[in-house]
Amino acid sequence: MKLASLDLGGRDGRLFVVSRDLTRAVPATDIANTLQDALDDWARIAPRLQTLSDALNAGSLTGAVPFDPSRALAPLPRAWQWLDGSAFQAHGELMAKVFGITNPQTDKPLMYQGMSHRFIAPTAPVPFPTEEDGIDFEGEFAVVTDGVPMGTDAARARDHIRLVLLLNDWSLRAAARAEMLTGFGWVQAKPACSVAPIAVTPDELGDAWADARVHLDLLVDLNGQRFGAANGGAMGFCFGQLIAHAARTRDLCAGTIIGSGTVSNENYREVGSSCIAERRGIEMLDEGAARTSFLHFGDRVRMEVLRDGQSVFGVIDQEVIKA
Amino acid sequence: MKLASLDLGGRDGRLFVVSRDLTRAVPATDIANTLQDALDDWARIAPRLQTLSDALNAGSLTGAVPFDPSRALAPLPRAWQWLDGSAFQAHGELMAKVFGITNPQTDKPLMYQGMSHRFIAPTAPVPFPTEEDGIDFEGEFAVVTDGVPMGTDAARARDHIRLVLLLNDWSLRAAARAEMLTGFGWVQAKPACSVAPIAVTPDELGDAWADARVHLDLLVDLNGQRFGAANGGAMGFCFGQLIAHAARTRDLCAGTIIGSGTVSNENYREVGSSCIAERRGIEMLDEGAARTSFLHFGDRVRMEVLRDGQSVFGVIDQEVIKA
Repeated sequence: MKLASLDLGGRDGRLFVVSRDLTRAVPATDIANTLQDALDDWARIAPRLQTLSDALNAGSLTGAVPFDPSRALAPLPRAWQWLDGSAFQAHGELMAKVFGITNPQTDKPLMYQGMSHRFIAPTAPVPFPTEEDGIDFEGEFAVVTDGVPMGTDAARARDHIRLVLLLNDWSLRAAARAEMLTGFGWVQAKPACSVAPIAVTPDELGDAWADARVHLDLLVDLNGQRFGAANGGAMGFCFGQLIAHAARTRDLCAGTIIGSGTVSNENYREVGSSCIAERRGIEMLDEGAARTSFLHFGDRVRMEVLRDGQSVFGVIDQEVIKA
Repeated sequence: MKLASLDLGGRDGRLFVVSRDLTRAVPATDIANTLQDALDDWARIAPRLQTLSDALNAGSLTGAVPFDPSRALAPLPRAWQWLDGSAFQAHGELMAKVFGITNPQTDKPLMYQGMSHRFIAPTAPVPFPTEEDGIDFEGEFAVVTDGVPMGTDAARARDHIRLVLLLNDWSLRAAARAEMLTGFGWVQAKPACSVAPIAVTPDELGDAWADARVHLDLLVDLNGQRFGAANGGAMGFCFGQLIAHAARTRDLCAGTIIGSGTVSNENYREVGSSCIAERRGIEMLDEGAARTSFLHFGDRVRMEVLRDGQSVFGVIDQEVIKA
């Protein structure tokens, strides 16, 4: 099923079930007010949402309204936890080559704790203090878990994946390297992420969900031009392994979001990239210097994922603006 | 005033006002159910809590009950954001000397994004998967902010400090160094923190609150033996500067917790340390090798802060147990 949180008051929005083709929606009234409420009691609530979804897709529901993506918030407008991996080896190896970063943890996933008190609505303008910060996007897939006990292994972790998301992990590159060198990870370099309007259960992806990876192209457009179409199936560590890594020394609460890191493929020269930093890295390797600039105020970034020509998560389409 | 969240159902507990001497408490019924509710509307709610606190301290209240610290949760049992600094230069310089870590950001505070979906109650046992992880405590002060707009400077940031906390930032040292070297910061090395039962408004600290620092000794006992009594006034960057650093590229939500990092003084050989790693570092310098071991299951860690002989935040007193 497909779920969205619409901006009808309240900081967490109101939970709606959306039709597979994203044309119609129905409020989850009397089932769960918010997506977090649903995740907190998923085993009991999901079957009821599924029944509503089935009726909506069958066209047998009277209470459905047109789905208006401009009213959509992020599916979780705030979350109790956001942990982002960096699971695409093509991206990691390129960044290591260009920036001389060596990762001593090749046997473990790379992961950082991100800010989670705000996820930006998919069509809202995104304010940044200054272009000098090196504003960049990162197209990613992410999963939402229910409660995961500490010590859950990767195989069992897959069973805790309740929803899949499309997400833009905005990054400020000028601050990123200095923060990495402290060893403390990113604070200023990682402001709030944006999320596509529709959270989908893994079964909605059909055979594109396999091995706890999303085997679909993440289409990134910058100012109307295709920037990248890398496939999510190339993840090294899968989402099960990322969840198990996160849960080794802590319980994960229901509604934890775990990201894949920038989607990237070995043939990035053909399929393009999901962030500007990667394209700049390729330019440095191939041409000796980066040509592509980071974002300017007024630039538009669009992300979408299609399956059989149909939008899976809806569209992130945002303007970068001065705060 | 002094506030606590008691375990009376609900994951966020129920907000109580506690008397200055920590003997009596009164529920904040009809004012705010939870501390997060109070922080979300602080300007309106704080004066009403203050009136209740004044009456409680004057002994003119009929609804007061004995304050039972064993029923206290962390003041915020979960928070939307936790950012921890490392603002004590004595600690940072020692760690740098011992571990060969160089910090390129001396003009900016060190800070990492921590997990915030759980803060452990002050007398609850604390489960860890294995002693092999190098279980350590870190005694810290922290502040809780209301909403802080992006770009707020350090001077104005001080006005957003609503509460002060005493906190134990549990750390797993065996994982810490490898995670630092990735540049992504800590995930496995930083499980949930524990927090003393009482959140206090800065005015409760009297002249011990000066320059946005807590000028009081943080008393740490390990298995009944004094381990450290370092003074919080030695912070390099103050809490105002830490908040401004955090807010440079993001808004901070109400209820954001900002930590000082391990409290540490230049004369650590006399006053002791607020974490085992620091003591081990001193031993390495002075004796060529670390003698003090990290924690074993069954060890007890106690933290308290006194002002004029009176406990300010109540007591953290916990046993480390096998998960």
